[in-house]
Amino acid sequence: MATTLIKKGRIVTAVDDYSADIVIVDGRIQTIGKNIAVGTDAKVHDANGLLVLPGGVDVHTHLDWEFGPTHTVDTFETGTKAAAFGGTTTLIDFCNQTAGKSPLVGLEDWHKRRASACVDVGAHMIMLDVNDQSLADMKTLVKREGVTSFKLFMAYPGVLMVDDGALFKAMRVAGANGAMTCIHAENGPVIQVLVQEAVAQGLRAPKYHATTRPSILEGEATHRAICLAELAGTPLYIVHLSAGEALSAVTEARDRGIPVHAETCPHYLFLTAQDYDRPGFEGAKYVMTPPLRDHNHQQHLWRGLKTDDLQVV
Amino acid sequence: MATTLIKKGRIVTAVDDYSADIVIVDGRIQTIGKNIAVGTDAKVHDANGLLVLPGGVDVHTHLDWEFGPTHTVDTFETGTKAAAFGGTTTLIDFCNQTAGKSPLVGLEDWHKRRASACVDVGAHMIMLDVNDQSLADMKTLVKREGVTSFKLFMAYPGVLMVDDGALFKAMRVAGANGAMTCIHAENGPVIQVLVQEAVAQGLRAPKYHATTRPSILEGEATHRAICLAELAGTPLYIVHLSAGEALSAVTEARDRGIPVHAETCPHYLFLTAQDYDRPGFEGAKYVMTPPLRDHNHQQHLWRGLKTDDLQVV
Amino acid sequence: MATTLIKKGRIVTAVDDYSADIVIVDGRIQTIGKNIAVGTDAKVHDANGLLVLPGGVDVHTHLDWEFGPTHTVDTFETGTKAAAFGGTTTLIDFCNQTAGKSPLVGLEDWHKRRASACVDVGAHMIMLDVNDQSLADMKTLVKREGVTSFKLFMAYPGVLMVDDGALFKAMRVAGANGAMTCIHAENGPVIQVLVQEAVAQGLRAPKYHATTRPSILEGEATHRAICLAELAGTPLYIVHLSAGEALSAVTEARDRGIPVHAETCPHYLFLTAQDYDRPGFEGAKYVMTPPLRDHNHQQHLWRGLKTDDLQVV
Amino acid sequence: MATTLIKKGRIVTAVDDYSADIVIVDGRIQTIGKNIAVGTDAKVHDANGLLVLPGGVDVHTHLDWEFGPTHTVDTFETGTKAAAFGGTTTLIDFCNQTAGKSPLVGLEDWHKRRASACVDVGAHMIMLDVNDQSLADMKTLVKREGVTSFKLFMAYPGVLMVDDGALFKAMRVAGANGAMTCIHAENGPVIQVLVQEAVAQGLRAPKYHATTRPSILEGEATHRAICLAELAGTPLYIVHLSAGEALSAVTEARDRGIPVHAETCPHYLFLTAQDYDRPGFEGAKYVMTPPLRDHNHQQHLWRGLKTDDLQVV
Repeated sequence: MATTLIKKGRIVTAVDDYSADIVIVDGRIQTIGKNIAVGTDAKVHDANGLLVLPGGVDVHTHLDWEFGPTHTVDTFETGTKAAAFGGTTTLIDFCNQTAGKSPLVGLEDWHKRRASACVDVGAHMIMLDVNDQSLADMKTLVKREGVTSFKLFMAYPGVLMVDDGALFKAMRVAGANGAMTCIHAENGPVIQVLVQEAVAQGLRAPKYHATTRPSILEGEATHRAICLAELAGTPLYIVHLSAGEALSAVTEARDRGIPVHAETCPHYLFLTAQDYDRPGFEGAKYVMTPPLRDHNHQQHLWRGLKTDDLQVV
Repeated sequence: MATTLIKKGRIVTAVDDYSADIVIVDGRIQTIGKNIAVGTDAKVHDANGLLVLPGGVDVHTHLDWEFGPTHTVDTFETGTKAAAFGGTTTLIDFCNQTAGKSPLVGLEDWHKRRASACVDVGAHMIMLDVNDQSLADMKTLVKREGVTSFKLFMAYPGVLMVDDGALFKAMRVAGANGAMTCIHAENGPVIQVLVQEAVAQGLRAPKYHATTRPSILEGEATHRAICLAELAGTPLYIVHLSAGEALSAVTEARDRGIPVHAETCPHYLFLTAQDYDRPGFEGAKYVMTPPLRDHNHQQHLWRGLKTDDLQVV
Repeated sequence: MATTLIKKGRIVTAVDDYSADIVIVDGRIQTIGKNIAVGTDAKVHDANGLLVLPGGVDVHTHLDWEFGPTHTVDTFETGTKAAAFGGTTTLIDFCNQTAGKSPLVGLEDWHKRRASACVDVGAHMIMLDVNDQSLADMKTLVKREGVTSFKLFMAYPGVLMVDDGALFKAMRVAGANGAMTCIHAENGPVIQVLVQEAVAQGLRAPKYHATTRPSILEGEATHRAICLAELAGTPLYIVHLSAGEALSAVTEARDRGIPVHAETCPHYLFLTAQDYDRPGFEGAKYVMTPPLRDHNHQQHLWRGLKTDDLQVV
Repeated sequence: MATTLIKKGRIVTAVDDYSADIVIVDGRIQTIGKNIAVGTDAKVHDANGLLVLPGGVDVHTHLDWEFGPTHTVDTFETGTKAAAFGGTTTLIDFCNQTAGKSPLVGLEDWHKRRASACVDVGAHMIMLDVNDQSLADMKTLVKREGVTSFKLFMAYPGVLMVDDGALFKAMRVAGANGAMTCIHAENGPVIQVLVQEAVAQGLRAPKYHATTRPSILEGEATHRAICLAELAGTPLYIVHLSAGEALSAVTEARDRGIPVHAETCPHYLFLTAQDYDRPGFEGAKYVMTPPLRDHNHQQHLWRGLKTDDLQVV
């Protein structure tokens, strides 16, 4: 029985702010209070003048992940170590179904890869094939495997995108089993038209990544995802929301009491499409999807954080 | 030179209401005024105590048209005769591209069929195949053939529906050539899921036509059509709008100054989904797409007519 | 019987655009048509290559009017002459009740002053005292005198402003008698606080006219006027709307089908609060109420004109 | 040093739910944890199987208060005893300025009356006279007396109502000193017109209390309060919100990030204006201001609670 005492820290949580000692036994908090006595074998940290915070939760990571010809730089070992140094003690990582295989196989493979993690790790499941078997597997994932969120793509036709019918089917199964549906919300087919034209015209500089994925197409897809989720009866979570139009759709739905949630990311709050114009290869470092937006979108995002229409960064 | 005099009618137009004589020479109005004298060979109609109105325009007809296994009852001869008796002197009828053929062929065929019309008839072109050739043909239709509106379907996957990428391409060509895009706005893929399930469960009574095409899916598709039209730069016309959600999307766009228009139909204003419950085959007579809606949608439609968010019945 | 022929002009009305001759007998149009023959004593104007337009209507003029220590520069003679030169053939001028007297007396006085007018002139009645007698007089004004619109002020406390109770009473009488209520919509009491403070601080330059009448107070009063009019059952007309917030309130009401109308003025469309900074006395020439606004309000006003939420300039 | 141990309760707070012991020393929580040992002189409560909750806070009470000819039934003694039995351990009560006197005098008097309270009690200050002295007193109340919220009335002209200018002045002082402004939001002058008419017509049954205070007048005043608070820079708190129109105004402001809050009350959530029709004196028991509303308002209120546009019941 290993005992740790954190003394006299200023404990700040989502709702409280006070000074106290914390006693941890075998990795779990046992007691919080004033002037707690422990045995001489306890490990003692003096937190006087320091903040003591709950560990952070990062709900959107891709560790040790292949996406087309690329592989993420971070493994679970390096990624979770970095997280721990920053005070993030829980990750929810994206694992994925491989087309043609069961999502359960994808989860099994993910469990192998995440073995080297040094903080708590949970999984969202990315669904690529929606059919009778994979819909049944979704139920198994929720009930047996503890995977309670499923991500689907409205972008990347022919690669990750599922059509609206498949999306709706998956949403219903998620809803019926108490799970959440996460959506990458951009109109893939229209973006594909714009991208193919830009490429055909030789417009391949980083800035065309932004012009071929206009914000209105994120707004459109977000609205569509909300309509389908409302009909299907699933809570919805929009990942990496970047556009004012998309936030408007989320706000409107939340005002009606529909269970819609959304996250944005630091880059959308602090960077803009002008960063694509940086010289040399610098601009290419800002290529992400959805792309960076014009400055006016940032004002909407900050508003959304203030009014709780965006719940996660 | 045939002269007709319509005497002393009460002339009511979109903006005026006054009494006067009208002289028509060779089928065109030549003079409007008080107490006009004409030659003795003129044909004179005494319209004293009668209203004299401009001829009506019906912008949405399907005459002599095949749709799947069905064929419209009315030919151009019978349909336009009926129109004339009701005071409708211009129709804009839907002609269509046949999949795999040029829309110009469809127009040629339509011209043959419409030869028996007894009132003025114009054409909207329904686009089924969107490819480089048919997009070029759209321009020819506008510039040479006087066809200035194109209709595309977001419903009926595998039959009439085009995907969002094709829809967007056609919208851009329409916009660039000063033409209007007409949309049948329902989310086809999700409706297909609902219909297939209902059929599989043996739910084939007329009322399931309504439950498998919920109003939120018309609202979704209408919003999507507006986003794509805004991006493509085309004026938009939503045909047979039936749902409050769809009207909200139109209203929101018009409030922002986007050129979006919409029509509704008498059946959506006066009938409801309860009519599907009529006994025997009676309910089946009300099967149309979009389906009849609940009563509360009617209130929205009447509001839309009042505030000019709906422009056409 | 004096006859005038206007030949071959291009006639453009709210709905038509065509070429024709117009015959006018004793000041009224008698006939419109092609190649009309007239007697040799007729006065003939050749309008070939010219536009022939209906006379304009200016629904908001103050001619020969005292307001506090000032008197309008234009009399009915000079003002209507200027109007006629510009093609405006009808004015609706504001006549007013004097506090403590019947509005019928105000109308009588106005009739004397307007005798020198050279175009058609109608009257709105400004109500200052709302009491049982003046409310009864309102009915007389509508039924006997043909005055069908009443203006009340929510600004200028102690001078022109009526309180909300009086405003509501007048609105109900207007509504019950088929008349319209016109409102100067600014929150007078709060503006008075801001003005008195600015004056006390010696801030008397023209620009402080704008800062002491912020746009949100026009938006507030417009919203309040709409609520009261909706409850009272009167059509409402907001005069000289200048602020985006006010237009939002009008748009929202019109979208619900409430009979609310509004005018804006050329100066709000083309000038901004920066004009108050012009050197010398120049800035003072732009002092009007509501004041000139920042540039972003202009975008809202142009949008309102485009979408018919503003009906009059 | 008095020690109390609450053993093995299920502790439920706004964010946590877990089982633990709580040690209280001299009325304050000292330690929370598993299996805590205390001295034999400690008072021990076994909470096994019971919920242990933080004490409730009721932010809207009127104890020992005169309002016109009436006096509240509850004194601080009886009212706080009742509160304690229900688990409410903190009240924020309304104390008031007497017209013509300083609010500091009102607070002094309130402190005398609240001496008999058996739970924690704080004060909101009701402002009736807004003048230079009372505005200065507001600052003293915040900085010296710990009164950080001020209530003003837009209803009850001649009794409690302040005009918009005074309201705005008080809001600015509140905002500048970090205090909150609480508003009773109904349009007093228009209601007075309706009430006087009803009384003159002998319509004095309880139901006329509701018809003379229509919901649109609460919506109007709420919108006005929000505009003035936004301009004045004060956080706003709408007390006893009952109407859908009022909630819409709050929602719209919160969506824009304006610091507006609102409470509703159980009677608005569970009773309707039909309760005024109860026989005999029963209907009169439901006379409160704002009045009970029609059923459709309840749906809006429940929506507001769900989406956090209403924060307090």
